[in-house]
Amino acid sequence: MSLQLKSLTITDPFWAHYRELVRTEMIPYQWNVLNDNANITIEKERNDNSIPSEKSHAIENFKIAAGLKQGNHYGWVFQDSDVYKWLEAVAYSLSIHADTELQELADGVIDLIALAQEEDGYLNTYFSIEEPERRFKKLAESHELYCAGHFIEAAVAYYESTHNEKALTIACRLADCIDVHFGKEEHQIQGYDGHEEIELALTKLYSLTGEQRYLELSRYFLYERGTDTTFFARQQAADNGHKAVIEGMNHRPLEYYQAHQPILEQQTAEGHAVRLVYMCTAMADVALLAGDTAMLEGCRRLWKNIINKRMYITGGIGSTVDGEAFTLDYDLPNDTMYCETCASIGLIFFAFNMLKNEARSEYADVLERALYNTAIGGMALDGKHFFYVNPLEVHPESSRHDPGKSHVKFTRPEWFGCACCPPNLARLLTSLHKYIYTIQADTNTIYTHLFMTHTTELEINDHPVQLEQITNLPWEGDVSIVTQMKQSTSFTLAIRLPYWAEHYSLLLNGNPIDTDPINGYIHIDRIWRSNDKLELKLPMEIKEYTAHPLVRADTGKVAIGRGPFIYCAEEVDNGEHLHLVQLTQDQTYEYEFDEQLLGGVGTIKVEARKRNIEPEWEDVLYASKAPQTYTSTALRLIPYYCWANRQIGEMRVWLNKA
Amino acid sequence: MSLQLKSLTITDPFWAHYRELVRTEMIPYQWNVLNDNANITIEKERNDNSIPSEKSHAIENFKIAAGLKQGNHYGWVFQDSDVYKWLEAVAYSLSIHADTELQELADGVIDLIALAQEEDGYLNTYFSIEEPERRFKKLAESHELYCAGHFIEAAVAYYESTHNEKALTIACRLADCIDVHFGKEEHQIQGYDGHEEIELALTKLYSLTGEQRYLELSRYFLYERGTDTTFFARQQAADNGHKAVIEGMNHRPLEYYQAHQPILEQQTAEGHAVRLVYMCTAMADVALLAGDTAMLEGCRRLWKNIINKRMYITGGIGSTVDGEAFTLDYDLPNDTMYCETCASIGLIFFAFNMLKNEARSEYADVLERALYNTAIGGMALDGKHFFYVNPLEVHPESSRHDPGKSHVKFTRPEWFGCACCPPNLARLLTSLHKYIYTIQADTNTIYTHLFMTHTTELEINDHPVQLEQITNLPWEGDVSIVTQMKQSTSFTLAIRLPYWAEHYSLLLNGNPIDTDPINGYIHIDRIWRSNDKLELKLPMEIKEYTAHPLVRADTGKVAIGRGPFIYCAEEVDNGEHLHLVQLTQDQTYEYEFDEQLLGGVGTIKVEARKRNIEPEWEDVLYASKAPQTYTSTALRLIPYYCWANRQIGEMRVWLNKA
Repeated sequence: MSLQLKSLTITDPFWAHYRELVRTEMIPYQWNVLNDNANITIEKERNDNSIPSEKSHAIENFKIAAGLKQGNHYGWVFQDSDVYKWLEAVAYSLSIHADTELQELADGVIDLIALAQEEDGYLNTYFSIEEPERRFKKLAESHELYCAGHFIEAAVAYYESTHNEKALTIACRLADCIDVHFGKEEHQIQGYDGHEEIELALTKLYSLTGEQRYLELSRYFLYERGTDTTFFARQQAADNGHKAVIEGMNHRPLEYYQAHQPILEQQTAEGHAVRLVYMCTAMADVALLAGDTAMLEGCRRLWKNIINKRMYITGGIGSTVDGEAFTLDYDLPNDTMYCETCASIGLIFFAFNMLKNEARSEYADVLERALYNTAIGGMALDGKHFFYVNPLEVHPESSRHDPGKSHVKFTRPEWFGCACCPPNLARLLTSLHKYIYTIQADTNTIYTHLFMTHTTELEINDHPVQLEQITNLPWEGDVSIVTQMKQSTSFTLAIRLPYWAEHYSLLLNGNPIDTDPINGYIHIDRIWRSNDKLELKLPMEIKEYTAHPLVRADTGKVAIGRGPFIYCAEEVDNGEHLHLVQLTQDQTYEYEFDEQLLGGVGTIKVEARKRNIEPEWEDVLYASKAPQTYTSTALRLIPYYCWANRQIGEMRVWLNKA
Repeated sequence: MSLQLKSLTITDPFWAHYRELVRTEMIPYQWNVLNDNANITIEKERNDNSIPSEKSHAIENFKIAAGLKQGNHYGWVFQDSDVYKWLEAVAYSLSIHADTELQELADGVIDLIALAQEEDGYLNTYFSIEEPERRFKKLAESHELYCAGHFIEAAVAYYESTHNEKALTIACRLADCIDVHFGKEEHQIQGYDGHEEIELALTKLYSLTGEQRYLELSRYFLYERGTDTTFFARQQAADNGHKAVIEGMNHRPLEYYQAHQPILEQQTAEGHAVRLVYMCTAMADVALLAGDTAMLEGCRRLWKNIINKRMYITGGIGSTVDGEAFTLDYDLPNDTMYCETCASIGLIFFAFNMLKNEARSEYADVLERALYNTAIGGMALDGKHFFYVNPLEVHPESSRHDPGKSHVKFTRPEWFGCACCPPNLARLLTSLHKYIYTIQADTNTIYTHLFMTHTTELEINDHPVQLEQITNLPWEGDVSIVTQMKQSTSFTLAIRLPYWAEHYSLLLNGNPIDTDPINGYIHIDRIWRSNDKLELKLPMEIKEYTAHPLVRADTGKVAIGRGPFIYCAEEVDNGEHLHLVQLTQDQTYEYEFDEQLLGGVGTIKVEARKRNIEPEWEDVLYASKAPQTYTSTALRLIPYYCWANRQIGEMRVWLNKA
């Protein structure tokens, strides 16, 4: 038995649009940014704390580090990672769409990076240019291993896409350099980076190269984390007298870095949300690759805490701007949260690595939830504007005048000084074909997790097999899968039943299949022939979701969903004061696809009522026996991902329900 | 015609308790604090940003400035004001309760202050000890005039109480010094203090001394404010190179200081809430004393904005911790607000000064609301623990783990490094007798604003008249007023009808009075005889209040009140998860006075229902078609002022209503 995925082509119009935007808009735009050629409009709001940067200087930093230019490093200490994330997106994009010019550009960047790499494999423009003596000495803030991780990810992707060995060689030399400096030996640093990333990159490098040391190093970093809780403080003390690497980060508690206790003792998801999910992504990969069941248990524990107690219905995570962090169970405020785009992307990484460990539809459900709502909501339909913070409730006047909501933007800015989210989106969207399937080799099973129109080429028991999936998702729940092969062959096709479909029907060549799903997947184990046709129907009912009673922010409220999408009400469709809108007990929802709206989007209409501002309230703030009158109103809801693409105004996901 | 208030003795048990606490607990305790003899337990919560100080050093600062000791200034730049507020409370306390020992102590402090005063009248220990060359050069932060104002207030009170001239002399020399340095002349500073206070102190000094310059100086500061919006920036630029007087204050917008535009152009209450109401207090006094009608209009404008759009039902103001400030109209979050005790005290000052201008019951209603709820809620029943921040909704786990709520304390700490609130409460409570009446001399009218058992001695048309008020308020709404006099005399007694009494009955010597109220006051204009008896009955119904529909935080909620009190639900009485409690449409409220509870308190009982956490929610965060089941629950509500006097737990003012 054997089953291998050889290639996959997404032709789905919904996703092709996004992937095309990355290729035609984001990658060229970001290249201009990295080279300080972009004409970036810095949109400054009062109390704006997103610290927009005047310029990127990222390529310039490499030129200086490479000795090609004189000058100083400029930008964040982790500025290099912008280049690496661009390179990774380019790698995936080239695998979708060959582009000689782009590939030459990328090859040139790799040549430049090679020149910036030091003799011993060390690679970081800030420390090489400015403070070589401080290498690895302030890991809580330095992001050295974080940047290294992003380069390694890019190099792996670039090798897979172009077979360019140069990037991979740099990556291996860099990993080797890190392997020399970190570990349990007395002469080594017994520590880890403040921002997890190297761990998940090393497992990728191991998977590509088979070099066991890289897997062991990743595992070492994970197990070392939080074991000696004095590590950062000791580095800080030894580094005393130097200026901060990142101003204002010293006061963060150890939870911020997930360094407060050994990771397998951590019962709850704490601290900076992106860091936490990057850590979990690596944990899940190490669990799989090293067969580390304790690590898998640790993943399940943190997963369960996030999914059951700390995740927004949009797949957003991070309940507070302070530390961009988790707070406490069931604390999910809709108007002050963080819900960073990158955190939802990290949650997608984590979910997918859990799927590789065990096919349970809850992982794919969350992956889909984060992807279709917060992740793509992070970018505008034009592919040129991006949210960092993804609120579930916006009142622009409050964002303008309440400092506690100044981080909650109501329009997507063009770019950020700390520009992690747009390139993270670019690499996710260009690599989306990697998230559709997982394979369980020992049972010759291919699991289908996401539904989108595509064709995939497999090699099963040494025979080529093609699966063609055609679907109208995300708008309609019909999916057909047709096989093509020269020779009949035996394998198991497992198809996910998403959480939003209460019922389903599945026909194989016109005959119903009625096997019970296992962990949310229908397993079809048979000898497949060419032109076998599976027809899956997933009814897309409009759902009214309520939150767990302990979610204080959602008391008395419902959220509306259909298929993978969570919906929202915008002021442009529904007028201002959305908090006065109330759904009643007996309303009916109507679905309507509107070709003309927002590039074509399924809308939901519902008759609701809106509280009047009665004349009795003129010059009155509190009253007893005040009247409460309502006016009927026809609400139009749109999918959350496409909010803020028309005009400035209020937005709400959770609507009051009488 | 003439009407003068000679003396007033409060014997009301409710208020006598508080006034006695100030005398027996707060004043001695604070004296120990000022002298670093107190054994203060610093209660540190995670993320505690109340910056508790190790010691006060306030008296020590004066000894150093006086040349009696060597050393450095320690503490905040406004540390002196702690001594002044203590002195002011002592002054009022001595007028209630003679105490030779305490008076000698206070005389000694005044002697010390006299020694610390400089030749030219300048008085400020920080600048005298540390940076005399920086006098008046950084007024945005320096609090020099703020401290001066507090000394002047104390000196006026001390003179009125003890006829000690020494304090008054220091005050006049200090005011003269300020008068020399500030004004419109070219050699003068054309500016003002970042924290209003001097303005309201100067009007008091004028009222006592009759010195017109003091009134003019106050008026100058008010009119100068916000006129030249570059003033603070120019001082900042000229001061460049010096260390900040208060770290981290430079980024504040001009609104924070009410310096963004001329005060008569300000349409809304902006910035630091205490500063705003201190400014308004001075404005109202200047309006009265200088007959400045434009100023009175300005007062009315800001009053209206606060009262109709920016005040909590508890009389709290300041919707955000960031800048301890106002935010925007109708933005009144219950769990992240500031509602500083001092801000409500300032609102009481403002309201009372408005009453002196024009007897309208809305001012007294707000004064009463702030006094009976937030102000006394700021201190524990033991008189030894104090809130700075007065939330309307507390969830202790959120305060512990959500950085956005770390300022919301769930127990009253003993003292603070920035200790403005406790001494401000002490001076309010000891001067409470000043807030019961105002007199309109031209119409020979005495207005009764507050109801509490007391006796007052008046001189009316040169004859002594006594009014004895007996009431069971705040628990029952019956008030009797009996006159005593040797000779019948004509005057008008005007009695406020509070907002919480929908009906009333008023008997004069057994006969109903049915004149219509004017601006919320029943005017009884007659020739009064000895033993005339007024009997007022104010029915104390239990009220269900709703907020203006635009108050987003209170949508679907009600607050319960009875008489002047707003009630709340505490976890100790009602279990955890108070957000799951729902009042239904048809419940009945029952009032019961409980002698044993919290020193004797009126409770409200109501049958409500509490949402169950159904078993279906095990490991589920969002669900469609989830059951919503309820269990009947008997709620017990207590007045807001006495919350957090038993055990740590949740508290809620605004309760969900089905």
